[in-house]
Formats: sequence, C-alpha cells, structure tokens
Amino acid sequence: MNTPNKPSIILVKPQMGENIGASARAMLNCGLDDLRIVDPRDGWPNERAHANSAGALDQIPPVQVFDATEQAITEHHYVYATTARPRDMVKPVMTARSAAEDMQKRTSDGQKVAILFGGERAGLSNEDVAKAHAIITIPLNPEFSSLNLGQGVLLCAYEWAQQAEYDALERETPQGDSFPVSNEEFDSFIKRLESELDEHSFFRNEDMRPSMMRNIRTLFSRAEMTDQETRTMQGIISALIGNKKN
Amino acid sequence: MNTPNKPSIILVKPQMGENIGASARAMLNCGLDDLRIVDPRDGWPNERAHANSAGALDQIPPVQVFDATEQAITEHHYVYATTARPRDMVKPVMTARSAAEDMQKRTSDGQKVAILFGGERAGLSNEDVAKAHAIITIPLNPEFSSLNLGQGVLLCAYEWAQQAEYDALERETPQGDSFPVSNEEFDSFIKRLESELDEHSFFRNEDMRPSMMRNIRTLFSRAEMTDQETRTMQGIISALIGNKKN
Repeated sequence: MNTPNKPSIILVKPQMGENIGASARAMLNCGLDDLRIVDPRDGWPNERAHANSAGALDQIPPVQVFDATEQAITEHHYVYATTARPRDMVKPVMTARSAAEDMQKRTSDGQKVAILFGGERAGLSNEDVAKAHAIITIPLNPEFSSLNLGQGVLLCAYEWAQQAEYDALERETPQGDSFPVSNEEFDSFIKRLESELDEHSFFRNEDMRPSMMRNIRTLFSRAEMTDQETRTMQGIISALIGNKKN
Repeated sequence: MNTPNKPSIILVKPQMGENIGASARAMLNCGLDDLRIVDPRDGWPNERAHANSAGALDQIPPVQVFDATEQAITEHHYVYATTARPRDMVKPVMTARSAAEDMQKRTSDGQKVAILFGGERAGLSNEDVAKAHAIITIPLNPEFSSLNLGQGVLLCAYEWAQQAEYDALERETPQGDSFPVSNEEFDSFIKRLESELDEHSFFRNEDMRPSMMRNIRTLFSRAEMTDQETRTMQGIISALIGNKKN
C-alpha cells in the first residue's frame, strides 16, 4: 500500500486534529505517505485534521490507527523516538540530520524504519522511548526548544527528503546473510526473557521490574540484532533454563 | 533592539494571525527574533497570532509593522525572496540550505540580511521578488510543494540555525552514571556464558562452538555494554540457571 522503504511517521496519543492534519501535509510536502496514529484523543477520522491537511489526507493511503505503540511498529526494523528533553537511557542520540543519513542507509538496505512523535502536552512516555533504537533530538534554541507537533514532523521529513534527494547512496551491509530482526520477533524475545526471569525469581522487587526490563531492552536494541542472533538468544535462554548435562 | 546580525523575517501581506504566531514560534525555536510584517490583513496586534505563538511574541522584541515592503528592508544589505514556483527573473536561486550558508558568510561580514515570505494565498508578488537579491526555493515534493507559511519560515530559520551555531550535537550515546565495561570484565562475562552453555548442552556439535561463541561475543560487543549492564547480564544468567519459583 505504501512505498515500502520510506519512513513511517507515527503520532502517539496526539491531541489536536489540526496538528495531525499539519503533520500529514508536511509529510506529503516531503514525499512521505505512511502516517500511523496511536490512540488519538479525539478518535479517527477527524474533521479538523482533514481541514488542516490541505488535501494531503486525501492523497496519501488511509491513515492506520492502533491502540498501542508496539502494534504500530511490528514490521519495522529500526525505530527512532523524537524527544526534546534528555532521557536517561543508553541509546544513540542523533540530530534530525544525522538520523536522516542513518535512515537513508537502512532503507536502501531494505530495512523499514519509523519515527515516533509524542502528544502535544508531554511528548513520548519513557516506555515508548524504550521501544525505539535511537533518539532524535533536534538542536534548537535551548531557551525555547518546544516545537509544535506538525513542525517537528516537518523537520524530520524535510531532512529525510534532503538526504534522499541529494546524497548518493552508500550501500553497506555488515550483516552477511541475515537481516535485522523485526520488532515483532524482537519483542517476543524480550517478552520470553522477561517471563523466564520472572519464573526464576530474577525480580526481587516488583517496583524495579519496569526499569530493569527497560534497561535490558535498551541493551539488546542497541546491538541492532539480526534475526539469526535473536534465534541464537532464544536458544541460549532455552539452554540455560534446561537441565544440566548428566 | 535586535541582535544585529541575525536574519530578519519579513511576512508580506499575511492573512491569518495563526500563521504569524506560528512563524514567531518557529523563529524563536531557531534563535531568530526580528519579525517584521508588511500590511497584515487583520491589522496588528492580532490575538490569534499571540495565542498561536506559544509565548514567542512576548519574548521577542516588538514586531515592526510597515505599509510597504521597501520600508521593511531599508537597512538590509541582502534580501532573499522565498517562492515555490519559478519566476522569470535573472537572480541566483538557492535552496534553504545553500541560502543559509550564504547568509552565514554575509552576517559574519557584518551585513544585515532579510528573508521575505508572501501571503498564504498567492505568495510574493513579482514586484516584491524583484526587490530581493536572490530567490530561495525549498526542494520538496513537486506534486505537493505548497508549504504552510509557518512551515516555510521554520525551514529557513532551521537551516540558518543549523548553519550558525547549534550543530554541535552530533551522534553520541550518553551512558548516565555507568561506564563502558572493561575488557577484563566483559571477557569474564563471555567465558561464564560459554561455560554455562556448555554445562547445559547448548553446543550440540563441538565443531560449531568457536564460530557460535564468536557470533555471541560479536552481538554483545556491538552493544558496547556498560559495567552495570554486564552485571545485569551476569544476574540474568544466574537467574535462568537457578531453580524456578515454588
């Protein structure tokens, strides 16, 4: 339905229809057409979004709406989270420009990438940021850095378009025959690990569990695992929980 | 009143207050604060402009309002006109990015520069374009290139800011309070993992062991683990090989 190798734009819990429309317009200005929305405050479709999209919402494929962020990124291989304030997570931090270069390399390798944007009031939750592989922070006036949602989408889409237009593509495939793991497969690895850790009393304190799991997920997502490596990790879990020799 | 050597943004015959407010917000996001308006349709001040500026109009020096474009650019040395469609005039045509480089050179030479933006409906008149030294055309989707006014201001201001000063943040991975793991500690994690995998019959085939261990080591070393994360992985191994709950 969509051109497979352009970034998806995912708005998580957006509040104002006007901003959804402005985002769609900005996307199409820059040649992007895969817009996804997670749990929009005012439901979908949204009249104000259409009115403010200057026709973009009629020209792109139908917007996909999801209940939860993880459902919106199942088929993606690499996810970027946009955030204005620093988060205490060990993830690569990129500018919109360096992220666009990174996206360009990945998409020309056949990977599918997505950019997450949080809602108007508070941005992305830590849980949503944890689902991403990298963070995009746009370098702006430090004393007035809060961008309108549509403006943030525009800058990321614009950098993508500039990159796509002007840069000769350097292809580089350091992964041999394997392919980056899909988010769905990665998630099921993380979920299995969590459930086995739970079975084996790893979490002494239930309060610590979310942040521990976030840290573990961050560690593995930073490695940008291949599908083969993910299967190896599944095998490692199975082996370790199994019986010893003899 | 304004920092002398930053570009002035001049909106010529803007119609909607919302877009003037969005322009002010985008300017201040990018560190610009000299906003001028020529013959605004709804007069000045404008409540909707203030409401949509997220406070920017209260933080920048008062907007200057003029009756005609030539009055707004009297003290400038070099003027850029933004336009989506080609004009039949012999003037340099630049992208927003190359214009930003040009501005940077001029402003650091002490020149004062300005960027003209036309109104929402028809853009700049040919007369106004003729008053400029150069044309800025932002390369966008040729089939959907009409930018909202605030979005156009944002892209020009953003390119100026990237050029000027905020480009310091490249790609970096903040590690919080932890530190990259030492090779010694990393090795002892990998060795312990190997010995536990051996104990649990992970290696069905002894010939495969060296290459499997190489792949596992590669996966974890690619993550550039911190010391804390390495301790967490040790804890995970201990948990998984331990007894189940109950």
